[in-house]
Amino acid sequence: MDNNTENLPEVSGAVPAEESFYPALDRFSAFSDGVFAIAITLLVLELPVPPENVPLLPALKESWPDFLGYIMSFAFIGGIWLTHAGLTKLMKRGDTVANGANLLLLLLVAVLPFTTSVMVTHLFTQDVGIAVFVYGINVLLASLTLSLLIRYISREPSLVADGIADEALRRITKQRRISIGVNSFAVALALIVPFVAVGLYLIQTVLLLIFPLVGIRRRRAGRLRSN
Amino acid sequence: MDNNTENLPEVSGAVPAEESFYPALDRFSAFSDGVFAIAITLLVLELPVPPENVPLLPALKESWPDFLGYIMSFAFIGGIWLTHAGLTKLMKRGDTVANGANLLLLLLVAVLPFTTSVMVTHLFTQDVGIAVFVYGINVLLASLTLSLLIRYISREPSLVADGIADEALRRITKQRRISIGVNSFAVALALIVPFVAVGLYLIQTVLLLIFPLVGIRRRRAGRLRSN
Amino acid sequence: MDNNTENLPEVSGAVPAEESFYPALDRFSAFSDGVFAIAITLLVLELPVPPENVPLLPALKESWPDFLGYIMSFAFIGGIWLTHAGLTKLMKRGDTVANGANLLLLLLVAVLPFTTSVMVTHLFTQDVGIAVFVYGINVLLASLTLSLLIRYISREPSLVADGIADEALRRITKQRRISIGVNSFAVALALIVPFVAVGLYLIQTVLLLIFPLVGIRRRRAGRLRSN
Amino acid sequence: MDNNTENLPEVSGAVPAEESFYPALDRFSAFSDGVFAIAITLLVLELPVPPENVPLLPALKESWPDFLGYIMSFAFIGGIWLTHAGLTKLMKRGDTVANGANLLLLLLVAVLPFTTSVMVTHLFTQDVGIAVFVYGINVLLASLTLSLLIRYISREPSLVADGIADEALRRITKQRRISIGVNSFAVALALIVPFVAVGLYLIQTVLLLIFPLVGIRRRRAGRLRSN
Repeated sequence: MDNNTENLPEVSGAVPAEESFYPALDRFSAFSDGVFAIAITLLVLELPVPPENVPLLPALKESWPDFLGYIMSFAFIGGIWLTHAGLTKLMKRGDTVANGANLLLLLLVAVLPFTTSVMVTHLFTQDVGIAVFVYGINVLLASLTLSLLIRYISREPSLVADGIADEALRRITKQRRISIGVNSFAVALALIVPFVAVGLYLIQTVLLLIFPLVGIRRRRAGRLRSN
Repeated sequence: MDNNTENLPEVSGAVPAEESFYPALDRFSAFSDGVFAIAITLLVLELPVPPENVPLLPALKESWPDFLGYIMSFAFIGGIWLTHAGLTKLMKRGDTVANGANLLLLLLVAVLPFTTSVMVTHLFTQDVGIAVFVYGINVLLASLTLSLLIRYISREPSLVADGIADEALRRITKQRRISIGVNSFAVALALIVPFVAVGLYLIQTVLLLIFPLVGIRRRRAGRLRSN
Repeated sequence: MDNNTENLPEVSGAVPAEESFYPALDRFSAFSDGVFAIAITLLVLELPVPPENVPLLPALKESWPDFLGYIMSFAFIGGIWLTHAGLTKLMKRGDTVANGANLLLLLLVAVLPFTTSVMVTHLFTQDVGIAVFVYGINVLLASLTLSLLIRYISREPSLVADGIADEALRRITKQRRISIGVNSFAVALALIVPFVAVGLYLIQTVLLLIFPLVGIRRRRAGRLRSN
Repeated sequence: MDNNTENLPEVSGAVPAEESFYPALDRFSAFSDGVFAIAITLLVLELPVPPENVPLLPALKESWPDFLGYIMSFAFIGGIWLTHAGLTKLMKRGDTVANGANLLLLLLVAVLPFTTSVMVTHLFTQDVGIAVFVYGINVLLASLTLSLLIRYISREPSLVADGIADEALRRITKQRRISIGVNSFAVALALIVPFVAVGLYLIQTVLLLIFPLVGIRRRRAGRLRSN
């Protein structure tokens, strides 16, 4: 019973050999932050600069799907990062499973500039359904992997920061079910009514950018009430 | 009155559940640093390497708008980063609003390599006004978002580092009004006299790069006086 | 005998002058994390977005070697990062040799998007053998350099974190011999039966992504037994 | 005399208002690490992947100037990073001048993938002299800016970590004169005998990659002697 070394405090030297070679939490975070930051910034490379011999304004107007894709994917990666950063705040360390699932999440985030480009370049072709489906699958798989990662960590007592962090993590996993439900629905719609699916992604983008403003009002109202 | 938990010290476990899932300040900084660093470095990808069968020197000379754009946008992003890094030094943590506004700021910074390229490729076309206007709007919105972020944090006691940090932040917000005024003026000029607007951006670039040298002199003079 | 200053605690000021100009461990980690994160994310730039006038689904299907290369190289860099992050956890600091070997490792990791692209673009040409050989040499050299770096650090008492970290590092160096053996074998096969070599890389990729799931099972079984 | 607040310990609140808005040292380092890591990794984008209908081996052999440029610039940026990381270890914080000079250094590092590409694409044209000159000027200016930054920090007591760090920094500035001398000589040679200049850069690259191995030998010999 006492040979369960996982609950020992993480003092190097006291840690059993096979546990001691996992990355420390700071590098887990730093590497993930790096991939998130690069993937989110690489999105700009997909925006087409109009050549100089073409009238600028009409060319920019015609590129609206590219700008839409840029904002939608920026908001999506930003949202994933926010949750990921909230997760590591409640984590103590990763293990083989957490690191593997995290790498898979990063792989799915890093490929988003590609699937975004696939979607926006085919928005007015007959392949729009397949294009939105490909984007949707990418978004859904990334969302699912993040939820799996959070759930796994919430169930491993040796990985969470303290005694109530696991509860917070389980609550987040539940809250995320709505977002996963919406994204599953969008994937199902993509092949039939692709622009409705795009609309669902757009609604999520607007919510993620407007939600803060709703939050600011509610908090101020709450403060007035509490005084 | 005492149910206002926002002023409690940030000990995990003591933090109310809905507050506990915000990113820690170190990841807020690390992710932002990543986006700033990538956006500022991606600017180099817009510089055109002359092909080998073309005389090199005339080709490089002809590319002066590209180099001008590189230096101007490098200085602008560098300036935004400097202020952002000064901000996080006086912050304790972010919340939903601060994270949302920060994501918006990063979105506007990350798109700057694109708008820079739009401006420099159309500097000698009839669309120069629109091109400089697009660049100017990008610069102005990024500047405004940073000011809004600083002002919001200065007004939320739970987010600032200590009792006098909020005053420092408010003073910075005021000082930044000059820069926002100049950038608003440049946007207004862009459509009428675009090269005057470019001149205003150039002046700011030179100031940001020469200001340090002015600072070094004043400080040395001050030290001589104080001895 | 006592003039061997390397075993003194690293207090700045007590450190001899020539030792004091090495990077601190946090920047060693941060810079390496940056290069790993960028190299792993740049892989996405090699994925070809089908042009809008081409049927999407057949074009995506035809790009399967690109996706295979993306996943294989993502897993390889991810694996190198995992080991590197485990290494710095057991390190105290670097020195000239460790920094030089680390730069060489990063050079070999950063060039992988190029060799991946060389391999996948020539998979169905008569040069497939040379293409897989070039990729294999890159993978092997990166793997070897990492092992050399770990072995060097394990043998320098002034660089390891504590008294038993060197043993853990030596054990890892031994375990890594299997992977280096497989990668050497793959390089040897590349020129004769290139697709067998690709198969070996694919097996390693699958192992790295499935191993976590194996680990989760074994751990749960172990926990049941210990209760 | 006592109103010289610069020697006060950096406790927020005790710091005068105008000093308090500089970035903390960790973000100074993190942002610089980001730019160094991205610039060094973007070098790979300049390597040309041979198209699939072209014999692979001759095409790769013909690209040797690209590989040479990749290794030379990787080593140069790596060397600048090593010194920069050693510098921040001896720094306490930056100020306006240090931040301005650091931004200028990063601007010159970030543009190196461009000047490297200019040099290697024109190595066998009649413009080889101008191409090597452009590369040389970039290398020299970056080297000079780093030396100026180190010298400035060594002379500002409020910026260095402790009482003897300034001496270490001044010694480094002196040692760097050799490297600056060689790089100045290379620039002078570039327009007359460009391949001799390239040879000088190559020698520095080899030294930076072989020096560690020389170091490992000397240290072992020294240890034998001290026992």
